[in-house]
Order: sequence, then structure tokens, then C-alpha cells
Amino acid sequence: KMKISGYAQMRYNDLYKTNPDMECEQCDGTYGGNDGMSFRRIRIKFSGYLHERVYFYIQPDFAGGNSNNVSLKDAYFDLMFTSDRRWRLRLGQSKVPFGFENMQSSQNRLSLDRNDAINSALKNERDMMAVVYYTPTIVQERFKKLQNQQLKGSGNYGMFALGAFNGQTANNADENLNKHIVTRLTYPFELANGQIFEAGIQAYAGQYVTTKVSEGVMAEVTGENGQKEMVSAEGMEWDDARLGASFIWYAMPFGFQTEYNVGVGPEYDPATNTIQRKPLKGGYAQMSYRLELGQHFLLPFWRYTNYEGGKKFETDARSYDMQEIEVGFEWQPNQAFELVALYAYADRTYNDSLNPDNRQTGSLIRLQAQINF
Amino acid sequence: KMKISGYAQMRYNDLYKTNPDMECEQCDGTYGGNDGMSFRRIRIKFSGYLHERVYFYIQPDFAGGNSNNVSLKDAYFDLMFTSDRRWRLRLGQSKVPFGFENMQSSQNRLSLDRNDAINSALKNERDMMAVVYYTPTIVQERFKKLQNQQLKGSGNYGMFALGAFNGQTANNADENLNKHIVTRLTYPFELANGQIFEAGIQAYAGQYVTTKVSEGVMAEVTGENGQKEMVSAEGMEWDDARLGASFIWYAMPFGFQTEYNVGVGPEYDPATNTIQRKPLKGGYAQMSYRLELGQHFLLPFWRYTNYEGGKKFETDARSYDMQEIEVGFEWQPNQAFELVALYAYADRTYNDSLNPDNRQTGSLIRLQAQINF
Amino acid sequence: KMKISGYAQMRYNDLYKTNPDMECEQCDGTYGGNDGMSFRRIRIKFSGYLHERVYFYIQPDFAGGNSNNVSLKDAYFDLMFTSDRRWRLRLGQSKVPFGFENMQSSQNRLSLDRNDAINSALKNERDMMAVVYYTPTIVQERFKKLQNQQLKGSGNYGMFALGAFNGQTANNADENLNKHIVTRLTYPFELANGQIFEAGIQAYAGQYVTTKVSEGVMAEVTGENGQKEMVSAEGMEWDDARLGASFIWYAMPFGFQTEYNVGVGPEYDPATNTIQRKPLKGGYAQMSYRLELGQHFLLPFWRYTNYEGGKKFETDARSYDMQEIEVGFEWQPNQAFELVALYAYADRTYNDSLNPDNRQTGSLIRLQAQINF
Repeated sequence: KMKISGYAQMRYNDLYKTNPDMECEQCDGTYGGNDGMSFRRIRIKFSGYLHERVYFYIQPDFAGGNSNNVSLKDAYFDLMFTSDRRWRLRLGQSKVPFGFENMQSSQNRLSLDRNDAINSALKNERDMMAVVYYTPTIVQERFKKLQNQQLKGSGNYGMFALGAFNGQTANNADENLNKHIVTRLTYPFELANGQIFEAGIQAYAGQYVTTKVSEGVMAEVTGENGQKEMVSAEGMEWDDARLGASFIWYAMPFGFQTEYNVGVGPEYDPATNTIQRKPLKGGYAQMSYRLELGQHFLLPFWRYTNYEGGKKFETDARSYDMQEIEVGFEWQPNQAFELVALYAYADRTYNDSLNPDNRQTGSLIRLQAQINF
Repeated sequence: KMKISGYAQMRYNDLYKTNPDMECEQCDGTYGGNDGMSFRRIRIKFSGYLHERVYFYIQPDFAGGNSNNVSLKDAYFDLMFTSDRRWRLRLGQSKVPFGFENMQSSQNRLSLDRNDAINSALKNERDMMAVVYYTPTIVQERFKKLQNQQLKGSGNYGMFALGAFNGQTANNADENLNKHIVTRLTYPFELANGQIFEAGIQAYAGQYVTTKVSEGVMAEVTGENGQKEMVSAEGMEWDDARLGASFIWYAMPFGFQTEYNVGVGPEYDPATNTIQRKPLKGGYAQMSYRLELGQHFLLPFWRYTNYEGGKKFETDARSYDMQEIEVGFEWQPNQAFELVALYAYADRTYNDSLNPDNRQTGSLIRLQAQINF
Repeated sequence: KMKISGYAQMRYNDLYKTNPDMECEQCDGTYGGNDGMSFRRIRIKFSGYLHERVYFYIQPDFAGGNSNNVSLKDAYFDLMFTSDRRWRLRLGQSKVPFGFENMQSSQNRLSLDRNDAINSALKNERDMMAVVYYTPTIVQERFKKLQNQQLKGSGNYGMFALGAFNGQTANNADENLNKHIVTRLTYPFELANGQIFEAGIQAYAGQYVTTKVSEGVMAEVTGENGQKEMVSAEGMEWDDARLGASFIWYAMPFGFQTEYNVGVGPEYDPATNTIQRKPLKGGYAQMSYRLELGQHFLLPFWRYTNYEGGKKFETDARSYDMQEIEVGFEWQPNQAFELVALYAYADRTYNDSLNPDNRQTGSLIRLQAQINF
């Protein structure tokens, strides 16, 4: 009844690293620095059907931070309205249905980290939520097929989703009564020749409260008498909304994938040392190829990412203007083991109160050994 | 040989909450505030018989604090003196046998949190201990029957118990050589018509050391020359003793349950900003009904709680004078899923050095979704 | 495919403790003080072959610190070059192959803690690493035999090992690009009468960075112009190298075991309040006897340990000059449960910036109850 499975990812990011000062907090704690060999993820999943209409999934991670702390990733349960599982109510901490790459498991993703552009919407992709998923039977089957044939699908996060979530990202209590609302529509089309492609749109909106703010960082508010005044930006509420589109041509054998999103949110302003409500935009494009070499698989890939905007959950809603190009490959000698090697070149400007003028460029080679158990 | 099971409780406590400043630290971190959806418990149990006479039970929780930290709940092993399991020595971290509701699993309890009156004896109900349990075969069978028929029994914590525990509550090292001593006697009577009721008494005594004390909070001691002097209350030893009685008329289908305890312990005194040795008292009464609706069960309940005394393990041995009325129901559509909704009205005065005059009253609706796996 | 197993150790170290100020940070948090009953280890292991040539092993511990925190012990995977498993590449966090007692599981060790002399090389014995192990088939079989017959072997960490590891000990990021290199050669000989004995040598070398340094503790460096100057010792790099020899005459029924190592590393100097590069040396000798009493086993043992040198991973690379004698026994009434009782007398001088003149002597009786699941 209960299934225990998981995966682990060990990395070495220090090879030919030209600039250890170029970091990416959201991507990987060892993207910058010279931190040696490290684990990015050690996930153990407990899951199963407890009843014809009740499913649960609990997944802690044992590789948190740079010191292998334990943190909770998923803990949710699905209540099926009908026995054909078309309608589900999901309660708990789970991925917020915004973006394809966000839904796709890191166990399957080609590149080592999720792209900054979409992933900056939701740290760790997750939040506490109540969401309704609708997935017609034929779409359930296609999602399953994409997983069974190891085509790196997202799994079933609904053809249609509508939900409410706390809004302060996973493992954080809410800070206001406002709940974020999210909706998503995605459809996996199958052509006559068997090729599958997926197209989706998604949006969310809510009020985010900035909690990690350096001393002296202010925000402008309108006082009771209509006058503008400056107050500490800590605990301030901000519009937080995004709209995104996704397109995935699954690698059979040639793959192409792109996502883009625009929105608004809090962002640090270096000129005034304030946090302001600012627009944001960004996306990525990725090409890949699935080579079958006897029992081995080799998947070369290329990805370009661009993001301009704040990262609301980082210190001072850190301001970003970044581009990154990655080229690499994934090698699967068997289903239990995978090796990824990639070369990344990035131009990352990220400013906060401590480092208000911080542009870093550089390149590095990244290695990852993964086991699936 | 090894069994893996567990349960998880997701809550929403913000509905019609009239006073977010009314908190209950011991009950639930999201009882006050506007913290949104949250997990109260995510428990995974590893247990089993390793040998005819050796049993083990390890239970971590993945929903600690408001950020889903991991903490150890149980980790104990039972050594049976005889193969009929009448006599057992339990070693490890486990529930201290004081009170019926404390012994009853949160998986089974009707109300969302344990009552303040008895539970204030032992944060998280547990401690490191060595305890001997004696349970005659007929009592073992009745305890089992109460669980198998889902009558919300406590499980087998002995008909008679005698043990020693560190005394600083679970996951804290002891602070003195003194060990707390606990004893308990409980008996489940079965009437001719099958109705079961249980009556118990229990007591513990020891020396507790206050470790969470604000700066400036003092305590009176008698110096070497017999003179009274004031010293910091941090690290002070206090008498810590309670005596309690329990009565449970199991819901077949009407249920009634009450417990009361009196004792002595450290308690903050707002007038003098000191911690003092003070008496404490309190209890609760609960009524419930077990409705069978086809395959569903619906259990309406009502509970009244009152407590006057200190909570030794909270900051400054915080002083309490509280009353709470709860009315709600538990709905079990199947054995895997439960929903609890309740309305609570409380009048809570709780004083410490930071808030020496702190009376909060208010009401809230509380929701809990639980899965059992 | 996946196996879940583990063990737990509960201790009481306060019996007839003559000097609670005598501590051993590396051994056991409750070696000193009066901390009452405590858990030293609660280990749950997830392991198994995922493929003919892929093995994994993940082991968290639920008894970290004095408050039962969770920490990651092992997380590694073995990639076999050949299907006879003679050559393996191990990636991940695992024991660094230095010393026999370090490799031997705490589940099997007679004495409660590892000896200071060898274990001071590597806190928690582990690090992130890539290591190649070579074990001929006959040696594989002997290692297996030592485990199956419960002769307290080390398991298979290779007849020959060569690897690279971060060097800052487990659950810490590396602090420099330098990797430590380790190599080990061990061989279990079997005599005509069936007696097995093992002899091994091992060495490692690298650059260690001191990160836990009190304010004001300095180190001497040579400036650009060749002049000596004093700078803070925090973040300084130090030579860190050891060479060790091991000999184990397995208890069939009489056992004898000894290890010794010499080396160099950072060490606190009380006279100058600096950290300096200093030599280190130390070892232990142990005798034991394996008594079969019906289905019970009783193993009396005696151990003497001596260590002079720094412990690089402790505050200020704390300076040690210690001796300890232990005499005790392990009793195994069945395979699920073990009890160890020992008397320890120690003379421990350990100096750091806060306690620069700190010699502690004393004795204590130590009890441990262990279950194996």
C-alpha cells in the first residue's frame, strides 16, 4: 500500500569556475564559492493510495542548505470526487501549479537547476494550499505515458487547476489573511505520428509580505491624510502577480521547450535603498535530443535563460537582471544512475542593500551524479 | 517485521477569528495570529517486534514549529519480562503515564489540541524514561478492543505504571541529578451490556529546573545564613508535582470523559516579577456521540477546560488562568480521512515578564483535515 | 529491493560520576555534566541494490546534539565497474577509509565511543568524497564472514582504497579548492584453525581550514616581504596529515585490537593564544573475550587510549593530552537487544582560548541499552 522511493543528487560545481563570487542563491548553494562536493537533493518519498479515493504523498529532503539539514518538501493528500480520478481536491504543501518546469520533478529535468525566470515566482515551487485539479481520462493517460516512456513529463498536476495558497512560499507561515489564487490550463496534444507536445497558460495573484529586509531599507506608503511617507519595508504588503505561457515539444527524439512570464512584485531599488512595486519579465528556451545507444541514453541539451525583476523571497526582494547560457548532456547508463555535465556562462546582476552594485559574470563546469531508488 | 505507518493533520485556524492576539503556545502555533493553512503534525512511525520479547517504536514528526522542522517524538523499546507481555520495561523517549488524554494518540482525539489543564504537566507529553508497565491479559484485550473498534482508547500504557524520567520534557537534557517519579493505575471496566468505562489515578513528583527565563526575573532563595535573598530564576530548581484523576465513559454511542489534576510548580508572579512556587489546578469535561451514517461516522462533541497555574516549560514559567469551551464534530467518511470542525470560545490570561498583564478573550472556528496511513 | 533497518542507543552516564566538568565533546554530549538519560544514536538506514551495478545507502540520525536533532550520516552510492564487485567507485558522504574502528559500525563496537586518538582525524568519521575500493572475492567473503558470525568486523571498505574528500568533515561545505587524499590497505588473514586477524595501514593528507575560532586567537603567517606577522586564525589553512596502522585479532573467543597514528595538524597553543601547526600522536589497545552462555553472549573488554595533539574541528583546534582506561562488558541476550556497562577512568587536559589551563580527571560508570532493528 505504501511505496517508499526517492533520488539523490551529488554535485561538483568548482571545475573551471572563473568567478566564485557569482552566486545563485535560488539555484544551488554551491553554484558560487568553492564548496567542493555537495548534495543538492536527497529525497525520500512516502506515498500511496490509502483508499480508492484518498492518496497521500510525503517527501522530506535530507540535503538542505550547505550542511545537509532536513526540510519538508511535499506533504499533501488528494481527495478524489469521483472514482475515475478526474476531479481531485489537493490539500497540503505541494507544488503551486505555475509553470511546466516547476511541475517537472528535478529527478527528470535536464539542466541542474530550474530557470530563474519562472522559478523566481515560488521558492522551492511549493506552498500550503487547497487546489482542485481536473484531468480527463485521456489526459491522465498521456501524462502517464510521458512518464512511463521517460520523456521527462511533469506528471499529473491537472489539465485544469484552480487553487488558493498562503503565498509566503513553502515552510513559512502566512503573514496576512489574503490568500494567493492560482489557475492553470495545460494540454498534451498527440499527433498522428505519436509525437506529443504540450501547451499551457497559468496565472496567480495575491499579496506578498516582505519579511527578510535589511535595516534601513524603506518603502513608500500613503498615510491617512493622503501624504506620502517612508516606512521600513519589513512586513509591508505587495502586489504579487504573474502570467505565464509554456510550450513543450517532447524529445521524440528532438525536443524543444520554452516558457515565459510577466508580472509585478516587490523589487529592491539600489538608487533609493527602497523596495518598490516593479514589473518583472523573463523566460527560457531549451533544445534537446534523445539519443539511444544500446541500453544507454544520451541527451545533449542547450538552454538560454533571461530574467529581469525582483526575487520577493530573497533579502530586500533582491533585484535581478540575469542571462545564462548552458550547454551539456545527461547520460543514463541504466535507470538507477544518471550523470549530467554542463558548461554554464552567466551574466548576473543582483543588488540588495549590502551589495547595491553587484554585477558578476563568469563560467563554470558543473557535474551531477544522480541515483533513483 | 517492521511496520511503517503514520498520520498527518492540516489545519486552518483563521476562520472568524475575533482576536489574533489570543494565542496558545502549547496547543498550536497557529491558534493565534493569521498564519494561514498549516500542518500541526506529520508523523511517520517505524515500529515492530524484533524478538518475542523486544518491541521498538520510533516516531519523528515533520511539522515542527511554524516552518515544518523535524523533531523526534517517540523512540523507545519495550523489554518483556514474560512472553505473555504482562510485565514490560520501557526505555527511551515516550509518553509519561500521566493522564488519559495525554496517552491517547492525537490521531484519535476528538478536539484538536490536548486540554491545557493536564497537558501543562508535560510539554509534548514525553520525556526520557525508564518505566515498568504491568497489564494483565484481560486488560490487554480490552485496550486492544477499544482500539480495534475505534472507540478512541489510549492504547496500552499499562494497567499499572511506575517509572523515572529526566523531568525537563522531551528533547531536553536533564538539568539535575534528580529524576521525576511517576505512577499510574487505570482500569477499563466492561459492563454486561458491553459498555466500557475506564477510571484512573496518577501522580508524579520531582525537581524541575527553569531554563527559559527573561532577564531580570528573580526568585527568592534562603542564603547560607538563613536570610532571604533574590537571585536570577534561571537555573533554579522547583518542586514539580501533580496528582490527577481520570474517568472515561467510552462513546458506545454516548461518551463522557473528564480529568482533573492538582499540584504545585513554578509560576510567574506579575506583581513582583519573580517566579514562585505556587499551587495549580484544572481539568476538563467532554461529551460526545458516535453516529453511524452508512459507512460514515459523525462524532459531535463538546468540551470545557479550565486551568489555573504555571506552565513550567514556557518563558518565565508563564502564569495561566484560562477557560475554554469547544463545540464541534469529527466526520470520518472512511478510515483514511477525517475532518474536524470546531468552534472555540476562550478567556485566556497568561502573563510573563514581557506581558505581565495579558488577558485575551475571543473565539475562532478551527478546521482540520487528517489522513491516516 | 530497498531494505530499511537501523539501531538505537540509549545511555545513562551519570552513575558514580566523580567529575561532571570532565567532558569529551567528540565522544558523547552527556559524557560530562548531569544530563540524565539520553540517546546517543537513533539510526534508520535505507539501502539496497538498484541495479546489478548500483548500490545506495542513506542513513539519517535522529539523536543529534542534546535535543535529538536530525542529521545526515551516510548518503552514498556505489558504482561497480565489474559484476563481481571487485572494483567500486563510491560517491557521496561516507566514512573516510582511515582506521579500523572508524570503519566498524557503532552498532558493533564494544566500547561506547570511538577512541580519541584515531577518531580525532575525522569528526563523525565521514566526509563528501569520491573513492575507489578494490576487494578481491576472497576478501569480500572474509569481510562478510566476520559480519555474519558477529565477530564485530568493519564490513567491506575495500582491501585497497584510494580517494579524495572535501576535508572539512561531514555536513560541512569545503573551504578551499584543495581536496584531501586518502589511501588504505587492509588484509584479513585466516589461519588454519579458522582464526582471523586483520592488519592494515592508512594515510591521508590535505589542507584543513579552521572555521571555529574564538575572537583574539591568532596565527603566524609569512607576509609578502618575507616578514612574519600575526593574523586571525579564522579561515587559515593548515597542513592536515596522518599515517596510521591497525591490527585486529578477532575475538574467537579471545580478541586483541590496537591502532596507532601519527601526524600533523592545527593545534591551540595556550602560552601564546595562537593556533600552530603541531605534531600529533596516539592510539589505543583493547582486549576482549567472547563468552557463549546458552543463547546469550557476554563480552568483557578492556581498553586503554592515549592522544596528544589538536582536534582540528573543535573550537580553536582545541589542544588535547588525554589518557583513558575503560573496563566493561557487553551482554547480548538476543540479536535485537544489547546492554553495555563500563567503568571509565580518564585524565583529560583540553585547552582552548576560553579554558587555556583545563585538566580534568575523574571516573564514571556508563550504561547503554541498544536495539537492532
